[in-house]
Amino acid sequence: MDNRTVGILGGGQLGRMMVEAAHRLNVKTVILDGPNSPAKQINSLDEHVDGSFSEAESIKKLSSKSDVVTIEIEHVNVGVLEELEKAGANIQPSASTIKLIQDKYIQKKHFISHNVATADAKDVESTPEALKAIGSEFGYPYMLKSRTNAYDGRGNFVVKSEDSIDEALKVLHSRPLYAEKWAPFVKELAVMVVRTLDGQVFSYPTVETIHKENICHLVFAPARVPDSVQLKAQLLAERAVKTFSGAGIFGVEMFMLSDGEILLNEIAPRPHNSGHYTQDACVTSQFEAHIRAILGLPLPKGFSKLSTPTTNAIMLNILGGEEPNSELEACQRALETPGANVHLYGKGTRPKRKMGHVNIVAPSMQEAERKLAIIMGEKNEESTQSKKEIPGTSQKPLVGIIMGSDSDLPVMSVGAKILEKFGIPFEVKIVSAHRTPHRMTKYATEAASRGIKAIIAGAGGAAHLPGMVAAMTTLPVIGVPVKGSSLDGVDSLHSIVQMPRGIPVATVAINNSTNAALLAVRILGAFLPEYHTKLEEYHQNMEEEVLKKTDKLETVGYAAY
Amino acid sequence: MDNRTVGILGGGQLGRMMVEAAHRLNVKTVILDGPNSPAKQINSLDEHVDGSFSEAESIKKLSSKSDVVTIEIEHVNVGVLEELEKAGANIQPSASTIKLIQDKYIQKKHFISHNVATADAKDVESTPEALKAIGSEFGYPYMLKSRTNAYDGRGNFVVKSEDSIDEALKVLHSRPLYAEKWAPFVKELAVMVVRTLDGQVFSYPTVETIHKENICHLVFAPARVPDSVQLKAQLLAERAVKTFSGAGIFGVEMFMLSDGEILLNEIAPRPHNSGHYTQDACVTSQFEAHIRAILGLPLPKGFSKLSTPTTNAIMLNILGGEEPNSELEACQRALETPGANVHLYGKGTRPKRKMGHVNIVAPSMQEAERKLAIIMGEKNEESTQSKKEIPGTSQKPLVGIIMGSDSDLPVMSVGAKILEKFGIPFEVKIVSAHRTPHRMTKYATEAASRGIKAIIAGAGGAAHLPGMVAAMTTLPVIGVPVKGSSLDGVDSLHSIVQMPRGIPVATVAINNSTNAALLAVRILGAFLPEYHTKLEEYHQNMEEEVLKKTDKLETVGYAAY
Repeated sequence: MDNRTVGILGGGQLGRMMVEAAHRLNVKTVILDGPNSPAKQINSLDEHVDGSFSEAESIKKLSSKSDVVTIEIEHVNVGVLEELEKAGANIQPSASTIKLIQDKYIQKKHFISHNVATADAKDVESTPEALKAIGSEFGYPYMLKSRTNAYDGRGNFVVKSEDSIDEALKVLHSRPLYAEKWAPFVKELAVMVVRTLDGQVFSYPTVETIHKENICHLVFAPARVPDSVQLKAQLLAERAVKTFSGAGIFGVEMFMLSDGEILLNEIAPRPHNSGHYTQDACVTSQFEAHIRAILGLPLPKGFSKLSTPTTNAIMLNILGGEEPNSELEACQRALETPGANVHLYGKGTRPKRKMGHVNIVAPSMQEAERKLAIIMGEKNEESTQSKKEIPGTSQKPLVGIIMGSDSDLPVMSVGAKILEKFGIPFEVKIVSAHRTPHRMTKYATEAASRGIKAIIAGAGGAAHLPGMVAAMTTLPVIGVPVKGSSLDGVDSLHSIVQMPRGIPVATVAINNSTNAALLAVRILGAFLPEYHTKLEEYHQNMEEEVLKKTDKLETVGYAAY
Repeated sequence: MDNRTVGILGGGQLGRMMVEAAHRLNVKTVILDGPNSPAKQINSLDEHVDGSFSEAESIKKLSSKSDVVTIEIEHVNVGVLEELEKAGANIQPSASTIKLIQDKYIQKKHFISHNVATADAKDVESTPEALKAIGSEFGYPYMLKSRTNAYDGRGNFVVKSEDSIDEALKVLHSRPLYAEKWAPFVKELAVMVVRTLDGQVFSYPTVETIHKENICHLVFAPARVPDSVQLKAQLLAERAVKTFSGAGIFGVEMFMLSDGEILLNEIAPRPHNSGHYTQDACVTSQFEAHIRAILGLPLPKGFSKLSTPTTNAIMLNILGGEEPNSELEACQRALETPGANVHLYGKGTRPKRKMGHVNIVAPSMQEAERKLAIIMGEKNEESTQSKKEIPGTSQKPLVGIIMGSDSDLPVMSVGAKILEKFGIPFEVKIVSAHRTPHRMTKYATEAASRGIKAIIAGAGGAAHLPGMVAAMTTLPVIGVPVKGSSLDGVDSLHSIVQMPRGIPVATVAINNSTNAALLAVRILGAFLPEYHTKLEEYHQNMEEEVLKKTDKLETVGYAAY
């Protein structure tokens, strides 16, 4: 695709997956790292440099073989990169970006000065007095962090009270430190952002990361938070990455607070563990996007989107088990699981070492969670993940049930029970066309973008709700005429069904919210196989029930029956 | 995943993509081929064997380094493989399978003896007399083929009449020949089939292959033929592969005749060009399936399925252009096209050489074809492919419009025009509940499996059609009450809308097939983004039209208006 050579500082799994993406584009890569590192294993060029990304000579040697130099790890000898850049080398992202990010305190100050929301931070001396002073200023707990060479939680210490100050200094001795105000987060979110050579930024979906002993354990894509929070996180991530120079992909880690506010945590100037899901769930993977971005190759519209509107993904990190190779048991189960993809890194087994990951892709998060539970070897097929869910966040509803008044609830709740029976995520709301017209407008216009696939609207009397909602959304709207005190519901039926050409409402029988719900299930089932299967079972049961009844009728006779 | 080593005879692009899949599973591969062949480029092991897959010594050397030996090309020294197998080597698929397939005439006889439908074939001497005798027996045209070492059309000759016999002998001189009765095919189909170590077979979807100068040019997945034909092809392919021994993936090429009958053409005992689409369109690629099958690693349920029910894919082969690297122009356009993935093989450019391929994935075949046209550099965005379609085959309809009688057509055709306007593939049929009850049953029960996503049923009077169809399918059914000569259509409206609990019909206003069609578009639009976008445009236009009208009314006054 391009006859330029990309030099990569670091040959771990991130480098390996960059190389895999580059191969597919016939882009030559040379790697600086120890011999037989994961990235070198899959690239037989003999021009690789054996050495370390902290050695000036090795970096210069790599650069001399490369048209573009990039990194898979930020803890490199950035002084040499600056020197090379000055001498005309093409470093992506720029040496100054790497330098700025390397020192977490400078990174933090950079965001604060660019008005990117983040927790307050202070430079601090490694003395008990200085740490006590921070405690009185920030309150407890607060975070004490090493400014440099910190990753996977190493270099971080939570100072819970004055009493833990001595331990903190023991753990983080001899490191340059800074303190960070505690962010009382309820979830950790992350967004991969691509920055092109001309400074455009594109974000991948907002994901939710779950850490275990400070190491990334699970990634849920998209994050199980409201769309509005997802969007806020994407915008914050884009704004933060815009402040840097140079091209490539950036992993942006954020905190979500209980009120839905987002604070930036930190940024990695390279592919990131929280973006591995993109290999199987997105149109273009983070690794290919990085290669394309640093070479100035085209990135098409929507390249960072989930591959279909119903794609949901979970990434599970495979860490080395206590017994050598015991981590392969989960991989074996993943090989047996439909929709799961195993990615191993060619590393020797060692406890807690990142050995590989599994990407699970499914048409709903519930299904992905069920598969995750199986792969993790949980005996019960029910995922524990969904049970552990933090209140205030929820699965995305696929169906919205709305009604003009709570007096419609006895009729409409019958349909809600049907959806529950089919395991379909839904929401129930009171939205009145006449009494809350603005609320109705908001509901109707936002429903599609929130992931709703069908709206069931119940109304009695003049029954304007279904038609008005239909006029303001492109989703299928199902209308349930609710029987009022006069005219037997025929008034509502005619109001709902006799819509003008252009705005359809799928009308069901008077008071029959059961059929409205089943119609919604049919709509979902036409595209999501799991509901199709459940519908087939439902029909079979209906048939069997009637057959049983006729059997009884024919056996006992109509009089006894 | 496995500490066994796979030895591969051949290091071309098929070997390369096998190695890529093996890497992800931490499966070690060693390759026998020339130095720096495409597969070796992405595998830095120094145990590879430099040599040819026809040399006994090289093959033995490879085998000594391997736990399992497999092939990426069938034209290998199979005698040595037989010898090694006897001595205990693990060859997959078995040496006897490779040997049987190598000689196309023996392959043919094998299928005939196993009752696998295929064109008749005869062994033939390389003399004018013998070829004339075949001509009188098979008629003209017939195929003259080299029994061995034939691929990409090399070694095939169409004997059009007695006059072309001399040329045929000139072209195919010095090769062992056989003759094949002409198969008057209208399409070429192919199916990838996986055979496991314990003899189970699993087929990937039926695809359609388009050749250009005897080289695979395009693959459409799934094939643009009726579902029943697709199924027939899968079953024939599975039956054929069942007759072999050994594990791995097989590429099965078939002819589709004008009456929908399927004849087997030939089989490759390895990954195949017609299966490249599986990398981006299926749950598990043909390459990973091959590696898993020969090692006895698990293959989950549904691994060979298209990744979603709405996935459609096209594979475009990238052949070397007349000017060196001119083929990269199409790749460049592919990089700019959403949903297109470029796979290059690391080969030097040479006219007509297979340099790479592009996989296009889209929620409909029309959209995939539009993207193909752009990538191929066709000025007009409209694909020429769909216009060239062979009669008798068609795009899969997404919506079915049915009505009880042709007297309903004036009402229903208005809806059909709406679907046409939105570019939605649909079908229109007369299906009467009372006059053709069995036809109705067949239609309703088969619709979902044919890919239909919604049924619009129009009926007047007693109007049983929508409800009866709804009772026999799990698809959403939209009912249009057609106004009859009495009761103003209220009879049909009530018949259609007042369905019992359990069987919903989405009812629209009397005679309003426009809204029925728009409801179908909304159902599709909830899952297929292209229709969602079109619906949004439609709504905007509606709004603008009304705004224009009120503007005129307010300008000219109500009396003049």
